[in-house]
Amino acid sequence: MHSLSEWLQVSVAPLNEVARQAAIERQQKLTKPPGSLGRLEEIAVHLAAMQGTEEPTADKIHISIFAADHGVAAEAVSAFPQAVTVEMIRNFARGGAAINVLAKALAASLEIINLGTVTDLEPLPQVFNLRIGAGTANFTQQAAMDEQQLGRSLQAGRQAVQRALQGGAQLFVAGEMGIGNTTSASALACALLGLPAESLAGPGTGLDSAGILHKSKIIQQALDLHIANIRSPLDALRCVGGYEIAALTGSYISCAKAGLPVLIDGYITSVAALCASNLCVDVLDWFIFSHASVEPGHQIVLNAMGVQPLLALAMRLGEGSGAATAVPLIRLACHLHNGMATFGEAAVSGPKE
Amino acid sequence: MHSLSEWLQVSVAPLNEVARQAAIERQQKLTKPPGSLGRLEEIAVHLAAMQGTEEPTADKIHISIFAADHGVAAEAVSAFPQAVTVEMIRNFARGGAAINVLAKALAASLEIINLGTVTDLEPLPQVFNLRIGAGTANFTQQAAMDEQQLGRSLQAGRQAVQRALQGGAQLFVAGEMGIGNTTSASALACALLGLPAESLAGPGTGLDSAGILHKSKIIQQALDLHIANIRSPLDALRCVGGYEIAALTGSYISCAKAGLPVLIDGYITSVAALCASNLCVDVLDWFIFSHASVEPGHQIVLNAMGVQPLLALAMRLGEGSGAATAVPLIRLACHLHNGMATFGEAAVSGPKE
Repeated sequence: MHSLSEWLQVSVAPLNEVARQAAIERQQKLTKPPGSLGRLEEIAVHLAAMQGTEEPTADKIHISIFAADHGVAAEAVSAFPQAVTVEMIRNFARGGAAINVLAKALAASLEIINLGTVTDLEPLPQVFNLRIGAGTANFTQQAAMDEQQLGRSLQAGRQAVQRALQGGAQLFVAGEMGIGNTTSASALACALLGLPAESLAGPGTGLDSAGILHKSKIIQQALDLHIANIRSPLDALRCVGGYEIAALTGSYISCAKAGLPVLIDGYITSVAALCASNLCVDVLDWFIFSHASVEPGHQIVLNAMGVQPLLALAMRLGEGSGAATAVPLIRLACHLHNGMATFGEAAVSGPKE
Repeated sequence: MHSLSEWLQVSVAPLNEVARQAAIERQQKLTKPPGSLGRLEEIAVHLAAMQGTEEPTADKIHISIFAADHGVAAEAVSAFPQAVTVEMIRNFARGGAAINVLAKALAASLEIINLGTVTDLEPLPQVFNLRIGAGTANFTQQAAMDEQQLGRSLQAGRQAVQRALQGGAQLFVAGEMGIGNTTSASALACALLGLPAESLAGPGTGLDSAGILHKSKIIQQALDLHIANIRSPLDALRCVGGYEIAALTGSYISCAKAGLPVLIDGYITSVAALCASNLCVDVLDWFIFSHASVEPGHQIVLNAMGVQPLLALAMRLGEGSGAATAVPLIRLACHLHNGMATFGEAAVSGPKE
């Protein structure tokens, strides 16, 4: 593989405009009023351009869950204790979490990457134990990561995409787990968008209004500490990000460079997508946004990218669960696009002249 | 079967509050922040109350497509010629329409009921040829149906539900096909809600603004003609409804009385649901609303019932296509509800005290 800076210079794969045009023309001929399948048409056309074929498919789904602990959890920014990160990794390995149930229902392949829990983990099925550190550093006091840890986290994302490609994935889904990671994601988005902490601090797994106010102060404290040292998106990611957020960012950039369509999940993954788009022009071409989380900062981050997700189901779980929930819509969009009769084939009259 | 008036008096099946409470408690124990699956939790709990079990399922889906022609099509209210109704029934029979592709992907059973096309139809697979009349009468000049035709249309809906129940369906989906039927649905909703035509006239399959203005005038003309004779929801359905809209109404009421959950599609089916709720108190308990159509009147009709659909994908096709698109979400909601580990089983810590 290239060095980090070389890798970031590699261009994003171009969309296939011939396939896109063919898909648009196909949609016009199908036995329905033009445009009447709404966003299902848009998805099929977008996937056609991404996959370079008039007949896109989303049968093979690869799901990577990136997990890590956050030093900032020491500042009482989460409704849940930090031990839950490790406990949930075990739950993923045993098949009991939401994403397990969804992956099974979708016949998707699922892997978990532990990038750095505070306590060590025994070997577990489906879990890659990378453990770059015992959680990130508490970014209210120092940078969350050093350069090497950032590089290894981004690399972990790139490696997950390599595995997805080797497995023949047609769509890449990433999720995250890490107590404290909405704090980190909010701090990162504030740094990237130049916003104050209060605009992006939210309840996460379930803080009350006093908890949100405290979280907002912690984020602002971190921003004030690091702002002078943040001269690039990579600086922001290193200073206030997390291992799993960097891995998400690396995986998304990697997909766009390799030409593998990505289905983005919720708030934290959208912040990683924002960071990816700040690092590499054109990566957004490769992203489909699955759902609008009820975490209040999500809409701001989505608006900053000018994107509109498919679903709004008041979800806020993470783990890739919103993206997984949208997978059947992507599949149905493909089935409709590929399987419906044309006006000519079915001898159905078109609109009046 | 009972006579029409006797049948309307039969109570709607009660929801099972014990099963609902058990489902709510189950959701609280699953390994996720409480409420974080949003509307997927709500669906699972609602289905549990409807199916009378802590573990609801939506594996077996029955889809009935009610098709008919509309006399008002003579007033140039549609972007498509009237022949399309018959042509689309043939397309359904050959498997080329959107709903065919969706039904196949969902492994749902699909039947088409021709309640009255202008021209007669040859025998076709999966199509019940009832043909109550050669289209409805042009309701700008007289009532769309007589009492007997209305009764037979409602009865056709009841019979479809009998077939669904006999087939073991766990969820009932109905769709419609009929050139001119957004005009009829808008007139019916105006009559039920006491609104002027302009508030509910929309583009349907694709009218431009001049076409919508003309359609609005036609609807208002019909309302002015019939308003004095409309003393009940059944009068409204008979005067300005359509055979397929009456069949939808009958099927929805029948489901609620039999205790079969219904997934409502888009604009026309929502108007039928509104009519059903005007005819029988409590039927709304049995309805899940699948999607918000871009037909502008849909939101007004949904608001009138105080309901919020699951999806907003800018669809406006009809045929039950929006409801079918939402089926995978219902299924995933059930899988998550039934398949996730509890905090106790997975040894995951709950929220901090």
